[in-house]
Amino acid sequence: METLDAIKTRRSAREFTDKKVSKETIEQILEAGRWAPSGMNNQPWRFIVVSDKKTKEHLAKQTHYEDIINFASCAITVFYDIDSGYDRTKDVLSIGACVQNMLLASRSLGLGACWLGEILKNKDKVAQLFEAPASYELMAVIALGESAEKSRKGERKGMDELVYKWI
Amino acid sequence: METLDAIKTRRSAREFTDKKVSKETIEQILEAGRWAPSGMNNQPWRFIVVSDKKTKEHLAKQTHYEDIINFASCAITVFYDIDSGYDRTKDVLSIGACVQNMLLASRSLGLGACWLGEILKNKDKVAQLFEAPASYELMAVIALGESAEKSRKGERKGMDELVYKWI
Repeated sequence: METLDAIKTRRSAREFTDKKVSKETIEQILEAGRWAPSGMNNQPWRFIVVSDKKTKEHLAKQTHYEDIINFASCAITVFYDIDSGYDRTKDVLSIGACVQNMLLASRSLGLGACWLGEILKNKDKVAQLFEAPASYELMAVIALGESAEKSRKGERKGMDELVYKWI
Repeated sequence: METLDAIKTRRSAREFTDKKVSKETIEQILEAGRWAPSGMNNQPWRFIVVSDKKTKEHLAKQTHYEDIINFASCAITVFYDIDSGYDRTKDVLSIGACVQNMLLASRSLGLGACWLGEILKNKDKVAQLFEAPASYELMAVIALGESAEKSRKGERKGMDELVYKWI
Protein backbone atom coordinates (compact mmCIF):
# COMPACT_ATOMS: atom_id res chain seq x y z
CA MET A 1 0.00 0.00 0.00
CA GLU A 2 1.18 3.51 -0.80
CA THR A 3 2.63 5.29 2.26
CA LEU A 4 0.29 8.30 2.39
CA ASP A 5 -2.71 6.01 1.90
CA ALA A 6 -1.58 3.76 4.75
CA ILE A 7 -1.09 6.80 7.00
CA LYS A 8 -4.51 8.26 6.23
CA THR A 9 -6.56 5.06 6.24
CA ARG A 10 -5.05 3.39 9.32
CA ARG A 11 -7.66 3.00 12.07
CA SER A 12 -7.78 0.99 15.29
CA ALA A 13 -9.28 -2.46 14.75
CA ARG A 14 -11.04 -3.71 17.88
CA GLU A 15 -12.69 -6.85 16.50
CA PHE A 16 -10.92 -9.65 14.72
CA THR A 17 -11.78 -12.80 12.79
CA ASP A 18 -10.26 -16.08 14.01
CA LYS A 19 -7.76 -16.18 11.16
CA LYS A 20 -4.20 -16.60 12.40
CA VAL A 21 -1.48 -14.15 11.46
CA SER A 22 1.58 -16.11 10.29
CA LYS A 23 4.95 -15.91 12.02
CA GLU A 24 6.43 -14.55 8.77
CA THR A 25 3.94 -11.68 8.73
CA ILE A 26 4.59 -10.85 12.39
CA GLU A 27 8.31 -10.81 11.58
CA GLN A 28 7.68 -8.32 8.76
CA ILE A 29 5.85 -6.08 11.22
CA LEU A 30 8.62 -6.31 13.83
CA GLU A 31 11.11 -5.55 11.05
CA ALA A 32 9.23 -2.31 10.35
CA GLY A 33 9.50 -1.42 14.05
CA ARG A 34 13.21 -2.17 13.98
CA TRP A 35 13.81 0.55 11.36
CA ALA A 36 12.40 3.39 13.45
CA PRO A 37 14.72 6.33 14.12
CA SER A 38 16.05 7.03 17.62
CA GLY A 39 18.27 9.61 19.27
CA MET A 40 21.94 8.54 19.14
CA ASN A 41 20.51 5.52 17.25
CA ASN A 42 20.07 3.85 20.66
CA GLN A 43 17.05 1.75 19.61
CA PRO A 44 15.59 1.46 23.12
CA TRP A 45 12.58 -0.66 22.04
CA ARG A 46 12.24 -4.33 22.98
CA PHE A 47 9.46 -6.73 22.02
CA ILE A 48 7.71 -9.66 23.61
CA VAL A 49 5.39 -11.36 21.14
CA VAL A 50 2.45 -13.35 22.46
CA SER A 51 0.69 -15.82 20.19
CA ASP A 52 -0.02 -18.51 22.79
CA LYS A 53 -3.71 -18.44 23.69
CA LYS A 54 -3.32 -18.99 27.45
CA THR A 55 -0.59 -16.37 27.82
CA LYS A 56 -2.67 -13.97 25.74
CA GLU A 57 -5.56 -14.51 28.17
CA HIS A 58 -3.31 -13.68 31.13
CA LEU A 59 -2.17 -10.52 29.35
CA ALA A 60 -5.75 -9.58 28.46
CA LYS A 61 -6.73 -9.68 32.15
CA GLN A 62 -4.53 -6.63 32.75
CA THR A 63 -6.76 -4.33 30.69
CA HIS A 64 -10.35 -3.25 30.61
CA TYR A 65 -10.18 -3.98 26.85
CA GLU A 66 -9.75 -7.72 27.47
CA ASP A 67 -11.69 -8.82 24.38
CA ILE A 68 -9.46 -6.92 21.99
CA ILE A 69 -6.43 -8.95 23.11
CA ASN A 70 -8.34 -12.23 23.43
CA PHE A 71 -9.74 -12.06 19.92
CA ALA A 72 -6.51 -10.83 18.35
CA SER A 73 -4.30 -13.42 16.72
CA CYS A 74 -1.30 -12.10 18.58
CA ALA A 75 -0.16 -9.26 20.81
CA ILE A 76 3.12 -7.45 20.34
CA THR A 77 4.12 -5.96 23.67
CA VAL A 78 6.55 -3.08 23.34
CA PHE A 79 8.93 -2.22 26.15
CA TYR A 80 11.35 0.62 26.82
CA ASP A 81 14.69 -0.80 27.89
CA ILE A 82 15.75 1.94 30.27
CA ASP A 83 19.32 0.58 30.34
CA SER A 84 19.53 1.39 26.60
CA GLY A 85 18.00 4.84 27.05
CA TYR A 86 19.68 8.23 27.38
CA ASP A 87 16.82 10.75 27.70
CA ARG A 88 13.32 9.67 28.67
CA THR A 89 11.42 12.13 26.47
CA LYS A 90 13.53 11.41 23.38
CA ASP A 91 13.49 7.66 24.02
CA VAL A 92 9.70 7.61 24.45
CA LEU A 93 9.28 9.65 21.24
CA SER A 94 11.35 7.09 19.34
CA ILE A 95 9.29 4.23 20.75
CA GLY A 96 6.17 6.05 19.50
CA ALA A 97 7.80 6.11 16.06
CA CYS A 98 8.55 2.38 16.37
CA VAL A 99 4.92 1.58 17.29
CA GLN A 100 3.66 3.71 14.39
CA ASN A 101 5.94 1.88 11.94
CA MET A 102 4.38 -1.40 13.09
CA LEU A 103 0.82 -0.04 12.82
CA LEU A 104 1.49 1.23 9.30
CA ALA A 105 3.14 -2.05 8.30
CA SER A 106 0.08 -3.92 9.60
CA ARG A 107 -2.20 -1.66 7.60
CA SER A 108 -0.08 -2.05 4.50
CA LEU A 109 -0.18 -5.83 4.86
CA GLY A 110 -3.99 -5.73 5.11
CA LEU A 111 -4.17 -6.50 8.82
CA GLY A 112 -6.04 -4.80 11.60
CA ALA A 113 -4.19 -3.52 14.66
CA CYS A 114 -5.08 -1.74 17.87
CA TRP A 115 -2.63 0.30 19.96
CA LEU A 116 -3.57 -0.32 23.59
CA GLY A 117 -2.45 2.23 26.14
CA GLU A 118 -4.88 1.75 29.02
CA ILE A 119 -3.02 -1.45 29.97
CA LEU A 120 -0.07 0.70 31.11
CA LYS A 121 -1.90 1.11 34.42
CA ASN A 122 -0.74 -2.49 35.02
CA LYS A 123 2.66 -2.18 33.40
CA ASP A 124 4.46 -3.76 36.34
CA LYS A 125 2.12 -6.76 36.37
CA VAL A 126 2.64 -7.26 32.63
CA ALA A 127 6.41 -7.14 33.09
CA GLN A 128 6.09 -9.70 35.92
CA LEU A 129 3.89 -11.97 33.80
CA PHE A 130 6.63 -12.20 31.20
CA GLU A 131 9.48 -12.23 33.70
CA ALA A 132 10.89 -9.30 31.76
CA PRO A 133 14.25 -7.82 32.79
CA ALA A 134 14.07 -5.18 35.54
CA SER A 135 15.07 -2.46 33.05
CA TYR A 136 11.98 -3.09 30.84
CA GLU A 137 9.04 -0.67 31.13
CA LEU A 138 5.87 -1.42 29.20
CA MET A 139 5.05 1.28 26.63
CA ALA A 140 2.33 -0.24 24.45
CA VAL A 141 0.55 -3.40 23.40
CA ILE A 142 -0.38 -3.89 19.76
CA ALA A 143 -3.26 -6.33 19.22
CA LEU A 144 -3.01 -7.79 15.74
CA GLY A 145 -5.28 -9.83 13.54
CA GLU A 146 -7.57 -9.85 10.55
CA SER A 147 -10.02 -7.02 11.14
CA ALA A 148 -13.70 -8.00 11.44
CA GLU A 149 -14.84 -4.38 11.46
CA LYS A 150 -16.03 -2.05 8.82
CA SER A 151 -13.62 0.83 8.47
CA ARG A 152 -14.70 3.60 10.81
CA LYS A 153 -14.47 7.24 10.05
CA GLY A 154 -11.69 8.90 11.98
CA GLU A 155 -12.03 12.33 13.48
CA ARG A 156 -9.17 14.78 13.59
CA LYS A 157 -8.78 18.41 14.52
CA GLY A 158 -8.64 20.81 11.59
CA MET A 159 -5.25 21.97 10.40
CA ASP A 160 -6.05 25.49 11.63
CA GLU A 161 -6.17 24.14 15.19
CA LEU A 162 -2.83 22.38 14.83
CA VAL A 163 -0.66 24.89 13.00
CA TYR A 164 -0.07 27.69 15.49
CA LYS A 165 2.11 29.75 13.13
CA TRP A 166 3.54 29.53 9.66
CA ILE A 167 6.47 31.92 9.44
CA MET B 1 6.21 4.88 -2.40
CA GLU B 2 5.15 1.56 -0.89
CA THR B 3 4.83 1.75 2.91
CA LEU B 4 7.34 -0.95 3.87
CA ASP B 5 9.86 0.49 1.39
CA ALA B 6 9.44 3.98 2.87
CA ILE B 7 9.89 2.57 6.38
CA LYS B 8 13.04 0.63 5.52
CA THR B 9 14.73 3.20 3.28
CA ARG B 10 14.06 6.35 5.35
CA ARG B 11 17.33 7.87 6.59
CA SER B 12 18.21 11.23 8.11
CA ALA B 13 19.18 13.77 5.46
CA ARG B 14 21.69 16.27 6.84
CA GLU B 15 22.59 18.12 3.63
CA PHE B 16 20.14 19.75 1.28
CA THR B 17 20.12 21.38 -2.15
CA ASP B 18 18.77 24.93 -2.40
CA LYS B 19 15.54 23.76 -4.02
CA LYS B 20 12.46 25.06 -2.18
CA VAL B 21 9.81 22.72 -0.87
CA SER B 22 6.39 24.05 -1.90
CA LYS B 23 3.71 25.07 0.58
CA GLU B 24 1.46 22.34 -0.90
CA THR B 25 4.06 19.68 -0.19
CA ILE B 26 4.59 20.91 3.38
CA GLU B 27 0.82 20.76 3.84
CA GLN B 28 0.79 17.13 2.66
CA ILE B 29 3.45 16.33 5.25
CA LEU B 30 1.56 18.10 8.05
CA GLU B 31 -1.56 16.23 6.96
CA ALA B 32 0.30 12.95 7.50
CA GLY B 33 1.21 14.10 11.01
CA ARG B 34 -2.39 15.02 11.65
CA TRP B 35 -3.51 11.41 11.12
CA ALA B 36 -1.32 9.93 13.85
CA PRO B 37 -3.08 7.98 16.59
CA SER B 38 -3.24 9.28 20.15
CA GLY B 39 -4.66 8.09 23.46
CA MET B 40 -8.27 9.25 23.89
CA ASN B 41 -7.72 10.74 20.41
CA ASN B 42 -6.44 13.87 22.17
CA GLN B 43 -4.07 14.89 19.34
CA PRO B 44 -1.65 16.81 21.59
CA TRP B 45 0.72 17.82 18.73
CA ARG B 46 1.00 21.40 17.52
CA PHE B 47 3.15 22.73 14.69
CA ILE B 48 5.05 25.90 13.96
CA VAL B 49 6.37 25.89 10.41
CA VAL B 50 9.40 28.01 9.58
CA SER B 51 10.17 28.83 5.95
CA ASP B 52 11.41 32.38 6.46
CA LYS B 53 15.21 32.47 6.14
CA LYS B 54 15.89 34.90 9.00
CA THR B 55 13.62 33.08 11.46
CA LYS B 56 15.18 29.78 10.38
CA GLU B 57 18.62 31.24 11.22
CA HIS B 58 17.43 32.25 14.69
CA LEU B 59 16.06 28.74 15.22
CA ALA B 60 19.29 27.18 13.92
CA LYS B 61 21.33 29.06 16.54
CA GLN B 62 19.64 26.96 19.23
CA THR B 63 21.34 23.76 18.10
CA HIS B 64 24.84 22.48 17.52
CA TYR B 65 23.49 21.22 14.17
CA GLU B 66 22.96 24.74 12.89
CA ASP B 67 23.81 23.94 9.27
CA ILE B 68 21.13 21.28 8.96
CA ILE B 69 18.42 23.85 9.71
CA ASN B 70 20.05 26.66 7.74
CA PHE B 71 20.36 24.59 4.57
CA ALA B 72 16.92 23.00 4.90
CA SER B 73 14.11 24.58 2.90
CA CYS B 74 11.93 24.66 5.98
CA ALA B 75 11.74 23.46 9.56
CA ILE B 76 8.64 21.95 11.10
CA THR B 77 8.80 22.46 14.84
CA VAL B 78 6.63 20.04 16.76
CA PHE B 79 5.26 20.94 20.17
CA TYR B 80 3.41 19.06 22.89
CA ASP B 81 0.43 21.11 24.01
CA ILE B 82 0.37 20.06 27.65
CA ASP B 83 -3.12 21.56 28.06
CA SER B 84 -4.38 18.98 25.54
CA GLY B 85 -2.51 16.12 27.20
CA TYR B 86 -3.71 13.54 29.72
CA ASP B 87 -0.70 11.31 30.41
CA ARG B 88 2.83 12.46 29.60
CA THR B 89 4.20 9.06 28.52
CA LYS B 90 1.22 8.27 26.28
CA ASP B 91 1.12 11.80 24.88
CA VAL B 92 4.85 11.75 24.06
CA LEU B 93 4.47 8.32 22.41
CA SER B 94 1.73 9.71 20.17
CA ILE B 95 3.86 12.71 19.23
CA GLY B 96 6.61 10.25 18.24
CA ALA B 97 4.04 8.57 15.97
CA CYS B 98 3.12 11.98 14.54
CA VAL B 99 6.77 12.83 13.79
CA GLN B 100 7.31 9.42 12.18
CA ASN B 101 4.25 9.92 9.93
CA MET B 102 5.79 13.18 8.71
CA LEU B 103 9.21 11.58 8.14
CA LEU B 104 7.64 8.74 6.16
CA ALA B 105 5.50 11.16 4.16
CA SER B 106 8.64 13.17 3.35
CA ARG B 107 10.42 10.02 2.22
CA SER B 108 7.44 8.94 0.16
CA LEU B 109 7.32 12.36 -1.53
CA GLY B 110 11.02 12.07 -2.42
CA LEU B 111 12.24 14.62 0.13
CA GLY B 112 14.98 14.44 2.70
CA ALA B 113 14.23 15.07 6.36
CA CYS B 114 16.18 15.13 9.60
CA TRP B 115 14.65 14.65 13.05
CA LEU B 116 16.56 16.97 15.37
CA GLY B 117 16.47 16.19 19.07
CA GLU B 118 19.60 17.86 20.42
CA ILE B 119 17.84 21.25 20.09
CA LEU B 120 15.55 20.23 22.99
CA LYS B 121 18.32 21.41 25.33
CA ASN B 122 17.09 24.90 24.32
CA LYS B 123 13.39 24.09 24.18
CA ASP B 124 12.42 27.10 26.28
CA LYS B 125 14.41 29.48 24.07
CA VAL B 126 12.76 28.04 20.96
CA ALA B 127 9.31 28.49 22.51
CA GLN B 128 10.24 32.10 23.38
CA LEU B 129 11.52 32.77 19.87
CA PHE B 130 8.11 31.86 18.45
CA GLU B 131 6.14 33.40 21.30
CA ALA B 132 4.46 30.03 21.68
CA PRO B 133 1.71 29.58 24.26
CA ALA B 134 2.92 28.69 27.77
CA SER B 135 1.46 25.19 27.43
CA TYR B 136 3.67 24.34 24.42
CA GLU B 137 6.77 22.17 25.02
CA LEU B 138 9.15 21.58 22.12
CA MET B 139 9.39 17.89 21.20
CA ALA B 140 11.21 17.83 17.86
CA VAL B 141 12.33 19.84 14.87
CA ILE B 142 12.10 18.32 11.41
CA ALA B 143 14.47 19.88 8.87
CA LEU B 144 13.06 19.37 5.41
CA GLY B 145 14.41 19.78 1.89
CA GLU B 146 15.69 18.06 -1.20
CA SER B 147 18.45 15.76 0.01
CA ALA B 148 21.93 16.41 -1.35
CA GLU B 149 23.34 13.25 0.18
CA LYS B 150 23.91 9.78 -1.11
CA SER B 151 21.75 7.35 0.80
CA ARG B 152 23.68 6.09 3.78
CA LYS B 153 23.56 2.60 5.10
CA GLY B 154 21.61 2.42 8.34
CA GLU B 155 22.68 0.24 11.21
CA ARG B 156 20.21 -1.56 13.42
CA LYS B 157 20.41 -4.15 16.15
CA GLY B 158 19.61 -7.72 15.06
CA MET B 159 16.12 -9.01 15.69
CA ASP B 160 17.53 -11.46 18.26
CA GLU B 161 18.59 -8.49 20.41
CA LEU B 162 15.16 -6.87 20.17
CA VAL B 163 12.76 -9.78 20.65
CA TYR B 164 13.18 -10.85 24.26
CA LYS B 165 10.59 -13.63 24.07
CA TRP B 166 8.17 -15.11 21.57
CA ILE B 167 5.53 -17.01 23.50
